[in-house]
Parts: sequence; C-alpha cells; structure tokens
Amino acid sequence: MPAPVELADIAADVLARVRDRRPRVHCITNTVAQQYTANMLLAAGAVPSMTISPEEIASFLNGAAALLVNLGTFDAERRAAIDAALGAIGAQGMPWVLDPVFVERSPARAQFASELAARGPDVVRLNQGGVRRALRRRTGARRAATLCAEPRNHCGAHRHADLVTDGERTSAIHNGHALMGFVTAMGCAGSALVCAALAVETDAWLATNAALIALGVAGEVAARTARGPGSFAGAIIDVLHHLDRATLRAHTKVS
Amino acid sequence: MPAPVELADIAADVLARVRDRRPRVHCITNTVAQQYTANMLLAAGAVPSMTISPEEIASFLNGAAALLVNLGTFDAERRAAIDAALGAIGAQGMPWVLDPVFVERSPARAQFASELAARGPDVVRLNQGGVRRALRRRTGARRAATLCAEPRNHCGAHRHADLVTDGERTSAIHNGHALMGFVTAMGCAGSALVCAALAVETDAWLATNAALIALGVAGEVAARTARGPGSFAGAIIDVLHHLDRATLRAHTKVS
Amino acid sequence: MPAPVELADIAADVLARVRDRRPRVHCITNTVAQQYTANMLLAAGAVPSMTISPEEIASFLNGAAALLVNLGTFDAERRAAIDAALGAIGAQGMPWVLDPVFVERSPARAQFASELAARGPDVVRLNQGGVRRALRRRTGARRAATLCAEPRNHCGAHRHADLVTDGERTSAIHNGHALMGFVTAMGCAGSALVCAALAVETDAWLATNAALIALGVAGEVAARTARGPGSFAGAIIDVLHHLDRATLRAHTKVS
Repeated sequence: MPAPVELADIAADVLARVRDRRPRVHCITNTVAQQYTANMLLAAGAVPSMTISPEEIASFLNGAAALLVNLGTFDAERRAAIDAALGAIGAQGMPWVLDPVFVERSPARAQFASELAARGPDVVRLNQGGVRRALRRRTGARRAATLCAEPRNHCGAHRHADLVTDGERTSAIHNGHALMGFVTAMGCAGSALVCAALAVETDAWLATNAALIALGVAGEVAARTARGPGSFAGAIIDVLHHLDRATLRAHTKVS
Repeated sequence: MPAPVELADIAADVLARVRDRRPRVHCITNTVAQQYTANMLLAAGAVPSMTISPEEIASFLNGAAALLVNLGTFDAERRAAIDAALGAIGAQGMPWVLDPVFVERSPARAQFASELAARGPDVVRLNQGGVRRALRRRTGARRAATLCAEPRNHCGAHRHADLVTDGERTSAIHNGHALMGFVTAMGCAGSALVCAALAVETDAWLATNAALIALGVAGEVAARTARGPGSFAGAIIDVLHHLDRATLRAHTKVS
Repeated sequence: MPAPVELADIAADVLARVRDRRPRVHCITNTVAQQYTANMLLAAGAVPSMTISPEEIASFLNGAAALLVNLGTFDAERRAAIDAALGAIGAQGMPWVLDPVFVERSPARAQFASELAARGPDVVRLNQGGVRRALRRRTGARRAATLCAEPRNHCGAHRHADLVTDGERTSAIHNGHALMGFVTAMGCAGSALVCAALAVETDAWLATNAALIALGVAGEVAARTARGPGSFAGAIIDVLHHLDRATLRAHTKVS
C-alpha cells in the first residue's frame, strides 16, 4: 500500500487533473443533496449535471465522464432513470459509483441496491455491517468499495475512519471533522467527488482514496475557522476549491 | 402560563434532550425547503429523514420520533406519502406537525389541509386569518396550534409575534429578526424544529414554545454579525448549534 | 442606447421598485436551483413561489407578477405545469422568461424549448451558438433576448460579456466575476431576477439589463471578501440585498 505521503501526492495529482480536464459528472441523486453536491463538484473543478428524466438521460450521459447513482430519493422516476443510465453507459465502460443511502431503513431499497451492486459499480459506499456484507458479496472483490464505518449524520465527538478496500488493498482514512456529520448531504457530496476522481484516475482504489482524503483534509482546515455547521458548510467548499499539495501533505492521515 | 424565564428554561431543557437523544424527524416537505430543514434539524441535534416514496415511508417511520407534514410541494406522490405516513403512525401515537404552506393560494390545497387537520395533528401552523379560523375549528381546542401572525416571507421592518395556543394557554413570542423573512424555508425549518421538540416533550404547547423561542433567539443573535440574508442563513444555524441556557434566558421575550 | 451611467440608474430604479412593490415571481424551475433562486429573489425584495402542480398552478399565478420557465428539470409534471401556466397567463399579459437550461444536451429538450419560444416569452436566455440562432429565429426580434456568451458553469479565468438584445438595441454587460461560475444555479437565479425586474419595468430590454447589471455588480463586490465559492454564494446575496445606487454607478460596465 502507498505511504500516506504518497497518497497525499496522489490526491493532489487527481485534484490537479480534475481542475485541468473539468470532467462532467452526471448525478442521479436525491433532491436534498442536489444543490450541495453540485457546488462541491464545482469547487473541485468538475462540472455537474443532474437530470433524471429517463427519456433524455442517455443524451446527457453522452459527454459525461462518470456517473453517480445515489438512492436517497427512491421514487419511480429515479429508478427508471438509473436503469436507463446504466444501460447507456454499459457499452462505454464509463465509471460509476453506487451510494445506497439509508439502505438499512427499507427492504425495498435494500433489494434494489443489491440488484444495482450486481451490475458492477466501480465503487460502492457502505455504511452498516449487515447490509455491507451482503452488498459486498454481490459486488465481488475486484472492485474498490468505500466502507464508511459510521452511519451518516450520526457523528459523535470522535469519528471513525473511512475504510477503502478493493479486496487486496485496504486503507483507513483518519481525516475529517465531526462537523461534517452536521451538514446534510456531506456523504452524498463525497460520493460525487469519488466520481470526479474516477473520471481522471482509472485505479478505482486510488481514486476513492484521493477523493476522500481531499474532502477530509478540507473539512479539517474548514473547521478551524467555522463558527458552527452553517458556516462550515460553505467553508469546506472554499477550502476544497483552493486545496493544494502542501496542505494535503501536511494533513493526510492514512493507515 | 409559565413566566418568560421559565419558558427559557424549558427551551433549554428541550434542546438538551434533543441533543442527548438525537430523535429522528421524518419530513414530508417541499423540495425548496428540504436541504435547509435537514441542516436546521442537524444543528439542533436531531436527525432528519426525507423520503416521500409511498412504498417505503412506513419503513422509514419505524424508528422515527416525529413526523412533519408540509404541503409546500403539493404533488400526487407527496399526497400519497402523507396518507401512507399518517396510516403508519396512527397506532403508535407518534407526534406530528401539519404545516399547510401557502394554503391561502389554492382551493385544492386548502381542502386537503382541512382533511389533514381533522386527522389530529399535535401542532398546526397557521398564517392567515380566514384559513386559520376554519382549520382551527376542524382541529379542535385540545391541540396546540402555532399561529404565526405574519405571512411568510413578507416581513416588514418590524415583526409580529408568533402566537402559540392550545385553547387554554396562549403565548406571544416576540423573539426573532426581520432577516428571518428573507431566507426561504425559515418557517418550514421552524416547523421541523417543533417536531424535534415534540419528540422529547409530550406537552405540545410547551414543545412548540421551546422550538420557536430557540429559533427566534438564534435569529436575534445571528443577526448581530450577519452581513445580509446570505450570511444570516448560515449564521442562525451556527448559533442554534451552540445555543445555551444563558443566552436563552437573556433573550426570551414572551407575553 | 443609454449610457452606462444611465443604465446604472435604471438598475437602481428597478431595484427600488422591486423592494417597494415586492412582486411575487412564480418559478417553474429545476430542483437544484429552487432554494438558491428563492433566496436570490428574497434578497432583491421580491417574493418567490414555486409550485409545479398542474392543478393549482393557475391559482398560484393569480396575484403573481411574473413567471419563470426554467427547463433544468425536464420531467412530465413540470412540462404539464408549464403548459397550464402559459395558458393561465395568456389572457393577462403577465411577463415571462424562458430559460432553456442545457438545451444543447438533449434533442427532446431542444424541441420543447423551441415550442415554448414560439409562445412569446418576454425574455429568452440563450447560451450556445447553434441553439441560440434557432431559438432566436422562433422568438422573433420584437422581444428582448438575453444572450449569455459563456456556457453555464464552464467559466474560465476571464468571463465573456452578457449580451442583451431586442433586435434594435444591444448591450454587452461586462460585470460579474469568475466565482459566479462556481456556484450552481447562479444563472438560473439570474433569470429569476430578470422576472422580478419585468414585474416593475415594462421595457423588457431595460428590465433585463437592470437585473443582470445588479447581479454582476453584486458578484464583483462579493468577490472582494469571499474566501471561495462557498462563502461567495452567501456573500452575493448579502450584497444584492443592500445594493445601492452609488455602488451601481461606480461599477456598471456596459458597452
């Protein structure tokens, strides 16, 4: 596994490529997260698009560089859009991330997530033990999987690490700040950043590490000046927009 | 009726219980308000959930502590979700708040709100005279009703008081700041805070007072440093997140 | 064509009328843009409403002063709402703005936009060459058309001018800041401001200039203190809320 300083440099390289190429990330995501996700992608240098109309999603994916499938809003239209989108990208090999938000709260959602996992996402975000194991088995070990040890928006005083594994390499990212758990859609926006990284880095495990390190370091730096979760939500976007190699090297904590 | 200092202490107690128990508030609310409502709940220490899919809403309500029904987006899917949600919570006695946004602008919305009021919400938010009287009659006097004397987003230089009554006790909360009228979804987020308070305080009148006092005081404190409605929207969330008993005692203005 | 200082004064006059009359702008817009658009309208002194339910949209337009039709979310419900809305305002002569977001990415969207352009919007916002010419031909030269020379969210280091023409008068507005391209929905919110201006100024070309000058100047002033796109998103709203004649006169750059 690369040393922390190497992962910091990889995060800096990935961020530089995103800013240079400005990849478009198409997001099928929930209505709560859309605005914050779009602003996070823009801050990182990527370009968001968000349509969920089944009839035009294939046109929108034409020219996009990565796809985010977030199940936070689980309505019939989004499910049709997801199916159409995965059909459209199948032939192109476009990278995609599955973020099965709140999958533990609803059997219907868990079933749908399981079917999507079998369609080969490059990265799956997983929160809770039982569902994590089930989904991971479906996804297989050839793919990188983000395993967030803590449930969303339930952060206590100390955070657990984000685990990133592809079955062979496993890292634990100790960056981040408790305030990130008090901003809605922070996890969803993080998954969108993973998409942006996948658009410029074919090694899904490295891309996932790069995105989560960048977000976690931005959160730590933003927390120094934020007065609470309201100003923190804007500050982390400010910091991500200007995040540089020296800051990444100084803060990256991976084991 | 409790003295203002007693209500300030009740607001502090309710806020402490929300922070301690982290109740989940399920919000069926409009798309404009979802993000701000979620961030306001998180700032207060509660946990938001937002799905409106009729097929999974009962699963989501399992484990939730209160329900918000906001009519700001009045589409067929949300109406089906509301019906399913009220059916699901009926047996459990879960507290719920009805916020019939813009009910005065559309007869279809007014009719639907009237039917919902008859299903026994713990709190109803009312803005305008005529509709207020009609809805209040349907709701009955056994319930606490928030009566906001001013229409949303029409604040002038001086605000009117928020009246809170359950037919026997009536309070007029004079806290708040004119900038609150320049941030969309401020009223909707306030109703979500009432839900969070109801999750930890069974006396609906006290819970409603506690939530509106906390929000109003946070608004006053935030307005001191905000440079306009943009920074104020974040600042009120910062202040609510850190709001303490001393600040509540110093600012609560109730008659 | 008026001199820049005259246009600055017209922008100040239009802003004063919006603040005085508080016109309600009904927005059929995409879910990503709803919150930011509402907050931008409130900051300018206008009042937003956002319902898209076909059955109640006519009721909501009753009392509104202008209508925004934004195609950013292109779902069946919004298309029905747009049709119902244009039917409802037809007799009253209520001004409306067509913002055909991302029309270049989807043939279905381009076709629908073309049909809407033929229904006589007071202002059309256009981004890209080919579609611009096609839509402009349909719209005719009797109307004011905003021509934004740069694609949304693709801003580079230097911005191009916003061109405003009604076929006889043409202005190029050089105000604005590159950070505006890093905040999602900035263009959508700008079109909503044009609606607010149209509600108080019958000359569509002057109204469009006034709105875009106000937003551009606000962006320049906000950029001085913002630390990045996160704080800038709030700062431009703060500045717009307090924008005065002297600041407009000092900054307006039109050729």
